[in-house]
Amino acid sequence: MAKAYITRRAQFCIAHRVYNPKWDDKKNFEMFGKCSYPNYHGHNLTLEVTVVGPVDKETGFVMNLTRLKEIINRVIVEPMDHRNLNLDVPFMKGVIPSMENLIIKIWEQLQPHIPPPAKLYKLKLIETDNNIIEYYGD
Amino acid sequence: MAKAYITRRAQFCIAHRVYNPKWDDKKNFEMFGKCSYPNYHGHNLTLEVTVVGPVDKETGFVMNLTRLKEIINRVIVEPMDHRNLNLDVPFMKGVIPSMENLIIKIWEQLQPHIPPPAKLYKLKLIETDNNIIEYYGD
Amino acid sequence: MAKAYITRRAQFCIAHRVYNPKWDDKKNFEMFGKCSYPNYHGHNLTLEVTVVGPVDKETGFVMNLTRLKEIINRVIVEPMDHRNLNLDVPFMKGVIPSMENLIIKIWEQLQPHIPPPAKLYKLKLIETDNNIIEYYGD
Amino acid sequence: MAKAYITRRAQFCIAHRVYNPKWDDKKNFEMFGKCSYPNYHGHNLTLEVTVVGPVDKETGFVMNLTRLKEIINRVIVEPMDHRNLNLDVPFMKGVIPSMENLIIKIWEQLQPHIPPPAKLYKLKLIETDNNIIEYYGD
Amino acid sequence: MAKAYITRRAQFCIAHRVYNPKWDDKKNFEMFGKCSYPNYHGHNLTLEVTVVGPVDKETGFVMNLTRLKEIINRVIVEPMDHRNLNLDVPFMKGVIPSMENLIIKIWEQLQPHIPPPAKLYKLKLIETDNNIIEYYGD
Amino acid sequence: MAKAYITRRAQFCIAHRVYNPKWDDKKNFEMFGKCSYPNYHGHNLTLEVTVVGPVDKETGFVMNLTRLKEIINRVIVEPMDHRNLNLDVPFMKGVIPSMENLIIKIWEQLQPHIPPPAKLYKLKLIETDNNIIEYYGD
Repeated sequence: MAKAYITRRAQFCIAHRVYNPKWDDKKNFEMFGKCSYPNYHGHNLTLEVTVVGPVDKETGFVMNLTRLKEIINRVIVEPMDHRNLNLDVPFMKGVIPSMENLIIKIWEQLQPHIPPPAKLYKLKLIETDNNIIEYYGD
Repeated sequence: MAKAYITRRAQFCIAHRVYNPKWDDKKNFEMFGKCSYPNYHGHNLTLEVTVVGPVDKETGFVMNLTRLKEIINRVIVEPMDHRNLNLDVPFMKGVIPSMENLIIKIWEQLQPHIPPPAKLYKLKLIETDNNIIEYYGD
Repeated sequence: MAKAYITRRAQFCIAHRVYNPKWDDKKNFEMFGKCSYPNYHGHNLTLEVTVVGPVDKETGFVMNLTRLKEIINRVIVEPMDHRNLNLDVPFMKGVIPSMENLIIKIWEQLQPHIPPPAKLYKLKLIETDNNIIEYYGD
Repeated sequence: MAKAYITRRAQFCIAHRVYNPKWDDKKNFEMFGKCSYPNYHGHNLTLEVTVVGPVDKETGFVMNLTRLKEIINRVIVEPMDHRNLNLDVPFMKGVIPSMENLIIKIWEQLQPHIPPPAKLYKLKLIETDNNIIEYYGD
Repeated sequence: MAKAYITRRAQFCIAHRVYNPKWDDKKNFEMFGKCSYPNYHGHNLTLEVTVVGPVDKETGFVMNLTRLKEIINRVIVEPMDHRNLNLDVPFMKGVIPSMENLIIKIWEQLQPHIPPPAKLYKLKLIETDNNIIEYYGD
Repeated sequence: MAKAYITRRAQFCIAHRVYNPKWDDKKNFEMFGKCSYPNYHGHNLTLEVTVVGPVDKETGFVMNLTRLKEIINRVIVEPMDHRNLNLDVPFMKGVIPSMENLIIKIWEQLQPHIPPPAKLYKLKLIETDNNIIEYYGD
């Protein structure tokens, strides 16, 4: 059966500060530069969620994109939008809020909600026009 | 010999209605939502065609992008641009015009025209900024 | 008092056919080309609504962009999204659905809903990446 | 002498919280919604600075865009990038950090640095793809 | 009669070198920096042509965008695309090929071809994502 | 250990002429069309550099994107920006400056500078909105 990849894009705004609490401010600045400033900065993050699966004969769909949109909104956008990754987001507790760690945590949140036979295939997180992170779950 | 991937982008406008003729309007609306409205809606579709192959020593090309553009225009854009996928496009006859089915049909149309040793590698169909479909031919 | 211009962007998908019912198909094709094909085609339309007004001292706002978003959704997006401009949209009845006529009708619909002292200043309708229409209400 | 408008674009990341300190959290939430959350959120802001002036015969320029870039970086980007508008930016002290107030303050900072006969003509601040603010200095 | 603004976008690739032949290389580098390098550099230029006029009752158009596209292609794109502004383009002879001078010359070429009652209103030339020039004909 | 892909985007402007010196102008025009015009043309090239590696426990990074930006600027952008690929760029000497050959040469330049355990994974070169080249190093 033919297999296609469908991608749904979402956007949300967060504040964060990248730093390691085991280090002092000087070492954090050496490692993370401006991203470690104490009073936070933020981004409009764009998340692209790609799901792969066979194309259903009855619907012509891998999965309904409206359903995928609802899952992404409920599981990812609502807990994070207009929030502070260091202070407000339960699934980021105790994690350095780099984009790499964030994308891994988003994968953990989303994956159980994708209805088989479709499977979560890839996440893409666009931090700025120039900085992009991708993750395939391993 | 080094192998590169070249992509040519095309845009065209279509109308369609996503529905399964075996179901009544109520069931179609449950499955396809607003996409099943009876009088059609439409999109500016963006198609990205990716071809892979060795880089030719004499030309420095995988294949001539101008030739690829002409193939895409003749085989895909001309039969579909400003047309209705449900009523006007021969290769979509009898197919539910979901984006997944459309991308599979575009692959079938394009593949025989790519000159070896180059090969069709990937198609990407951008329905809206938030909805994207990809297909690798299997 | 300082005066600023705020713009809210919305997107929706429509089908339409540009033709003048007083003419036969041949004359319509001469005037409107592919846009006159009988079975419709469609677009992802992007609408930018610009409102001008003084910046309120208490809120720092010209007007609340969330409220503007709700007005645009209720008055414009909901009646048109996934609809056929020739057949489905009450305020387009009896009007040739060119982008110019559409933008004038959108202005008529939106203007009464903008709360003073803010005023509707400009509409921009992006039909495709290459075709853009603007209107200032006169 | 012919008069042209030149625009230079810059991007930077900030955190902020929109709230009026004269109000309690409940009233702030009623007015500003998610933008008033206490722990800040943030954006990649895009700023477009437009300068108007006669085209110099010797250089063919209104003003040197490299010089304009340096002014924008020194006066606007460096004090704000990766900073918190509520806590860190001297020229935003005591101001509700709405986009409208921010664009007015950016105008005040930039205007004295544009070398005559060129003049600052317009600022555009893109908060998200859907929210845009413009200001002409009055 | 309602007046609308229609914009058609075109893209083409050019090489150029910004320098004043009255100056030596050292002074040219002081004034124009990297843009004065002797062996040329180039851009994908995007040109937006805006025409204003009354909306015709019979067609619903200010003017036919397909006709505007043909004018832009014949008068502007064909003489410049894949050409060197310093060496190849007749209407740029003897002119420092800054973007300001280029946009003024494009105006002179295009204006006589716009059919009344429509009028050329504005040109916008996007040199890079960060550098934009606009011209209104005076 | 989780493995992520990070991408940094850079932009620069070049002139080039695609032609094979073994052929006369007529054959070059047959093969390369407008790209072979003798006086060069140019592009704003966008380069996306993707690096893959394990996510470091101490930093939450695959590698520091600021360091990756500095490498790309020093090794790729500075030697090419505002230069002519046929005449000015040492690592393009004796190579037909097609986008395919350019991306292979960029790979050769960049790869030795990526600090293990991170590895160069992919390059993407966007010549125009419609022409894109990718390379994975083999």
